Amino acid sequence: MTQPKGPVANFAEIRAVLASFPGPDRQAAAEAAAREGQLTKPPGALGRLEEISAWMATWQGKARPKADHPRVAVFAANHGIAAQGVSAFPPSVTEQMVRNFVSGGAAVNQLSTLFDADLRVYEMALDKPTADFSKGPAMREEDCARAMAYGMMAVEANLDILCLGEMGIANTASASAICAGLFGGNAQDWVGPGTGVAGDALTHKKAVIDGALKLHFAEKRDPLDVLARVGGLELAAIAGAVMAARLARTPVLLDGFACTAAAAVLHALDEHALDHCMVAHMSAEPGHRRLLDKIGKKPLLDLGMRLGEGSGAALALGLVKAAVACHTGMATFADAGIDGKV
Amino acid sequence: MTQPKGPVANFAEIRAVLASFPGPDRQAAAEAAAREGQLTKPPGALGRLEEISAWMATWQGKARPKADHPRVAVFAANHGIAAQGVSAFPPSVTEQMVRNFVSGGAAVNQLSTLFDADLRVYEMALDKPTADFSKGPAMREEDCARAMAYGMMAVEANLDILCLGEMGIANTASASAICAGLFGGNAQDWVGPGTGVAGDALTHKKAVIDGALKLHFAEKRDPLDVLARVGGLELAAIAGAVMAARLARTPVLLDGFACTAAAAVLHALDEHALDHCMVAHMSAEPGHRRLLDKIGKKPLLDLGMRLGEGSGAALALGLVKAAVACHTGMATFADAGIDGKV
Repeated sequence: MTQPKGPVANFAEIRAVLASFPGPDRQAAAEAAAREGQLTKPPGALGRLEEISAWMATWQGKARPKADHPRVAVFAANHGIAAQGVSAFPPSVTEQMVRNFVSGGAAVNQLSTLFDADLRVYEMALDKPTADFSKGPAMREEDCARAMAYGMMAVEANLDILCLGEMGIANTASASAICAGLFGGNAQDWVGPGTGVAGDALTHKKAVIDGALKLHFAEKRDPLDVLARVGGLELAAIAGAVMAARLARTPVLLDGFACTAAAAVLHALDEHALDHCMVAHMSAEPGHRRLLDKIGKKPLLDLGMRLGEGSGAALALGLVKAAVACHTGMATFADAGIDGKV
Repeated sequence: MTQPKGPVANFAEIRAVLASFPGPDRQAAAEAAAREGQLTKPPGALGRLEEISAWMATWQGKARPKADHPRVAVFAANHGIAAQGVSAFPPSVTEQMVRNFVSGGAAVNQLSTLFDADLRVYEMALDKPTADFSKGPAMREEDCARAMAYGMMAVEANLDILCLGEMGIANTASASAICAGLFGGNAQDWVGPGTGVAGDALTHKKAVIDGALKLHFAEKRDPLDVLARVGGLELAAIAGAVMAARLARTPVLLDGFACTAAAAVLHALDEHALDHCMVAHMSAEPGHRRLLDKIGKKPLLDLGMRLGEGSGAALALGLVKAAVACHTGMATFADAGIDGKV
């Protein structure tokens, strides 16, 4: 990954794509809202299912949204910071889990099958981890921009919704550092157990991150520079996929802490950059709640999950499909000959 | 419904069925827990999905639980209390909504289809509402017991999980009175907008319920007497269905406020009577939160829904199917050749 290739190879081009983001389709939103009010239920009685169907209509640009072709895209990469002993599992597990995804044995496989989603796993040079960000920048600008461009390829024209997820041993360390770089705070604010570090190991993980924060963020950095300095290839790819989905009018379900941290880079650049995204669930990783407050998102599920690999996003597909099925399939009061309010 | 028929016709028989409830299958639970610990994820990383699969194993009595044959059972009945103007909709809507269920136009139809559930609608003498409980008991003992027996018929041997729901204009008034009769408190504690009463109409609804509470509950009543005095046919049927499901080793998803209030009658008789039940969602009806505290249940979803008709329970089927799919379909660390913790 030393030679820039492809359409996007630097941050100026990333910014240009961001500036070209389409806004909400207010016509589709208005038509969907008009239909919602006629469906055979008291107004608002489906709660956030109504919010979901309105959001799908608005960002697909279709008064009758669809959820027939979901994709679950999982990006996998390795992290130099793993050498600092910040994870409960060795870095070899990233590749082993990718093989598990390919052979159908992971949680995200079962969830994707259940909800008829097209699962794609994007393996990003697992033998070439990013540099150890406790010692210097994880990525150069061109490597980060190219990883974002790679993530953009996960979006095709015919998708109704895109679920994003990640696999990368040590990437909650990276995500914590991204959050601190974007929003301030220190390791105590953003670092949690990840795959299961506790006690002295957690204290060590926090010390490693605090050291890295001092190294990189003594001064306030541009959000893309934050991503390059302490991010990872899979996290950059997720940010790229979020961007490509916006251009393709594909709503996005973000997964847990690492995935949301990646997307938050775009929010820091433009507070409307994630308007086409919902956060699928509240992760048990403690930094996630704080991060969601920062980007103003309320998760759909809160089930104490903390697996990553897109599992929370894939699970929330059931809610999105349900919302769209109700909105598009229900009878109206007039159709059904039902009396209105007294 | 004046002549007692069928196997259960009085409360002594109901109590005998309750006393015969089977307990948890600890062998199945232990086997499921052993498998859970070997699956390719950090321990506990699937959060409440692991709780759901353990519960399914425990109450199905199967180490490898199944969720292939769900049923959604919706009981519909009319309420004499509707004459007091406690609902935003006229009582004619109960029958009109039953027709909407039959023709496939309601929310619960879309959700049942999405999750491959067998939807059954049980219409309970819609032309014969219960008596107006603001003036006297809603039902005689034999009518209430027979409605419970009717509900028991909704359970057959081959069901993997049963979702329960109700339709009955004015039944949040009935549910509120049941809660006050079981747990104490007054209308202010238990009465909410239901289908959408507000302002003076809500004040009136509360006054009607407070009057009824004074009439029926000046002294503490037995839980089955509470159900007969202020309940409804569909609520009694739900209690019966919960009982039959326990006998058949079929786990149950309870829906919102009215459905949970019906089941709470059994909890008041025996605090373990609902151990085979989960509450699908937190209803926006304000009494639901208080009721869940009383029976010690944490809902799976919290999406601001307040439709009834089993919609929340049917929606949570997606979570149950997901939990079972992960538990039974995932590879173990040994299968996948994945390294353990450092």
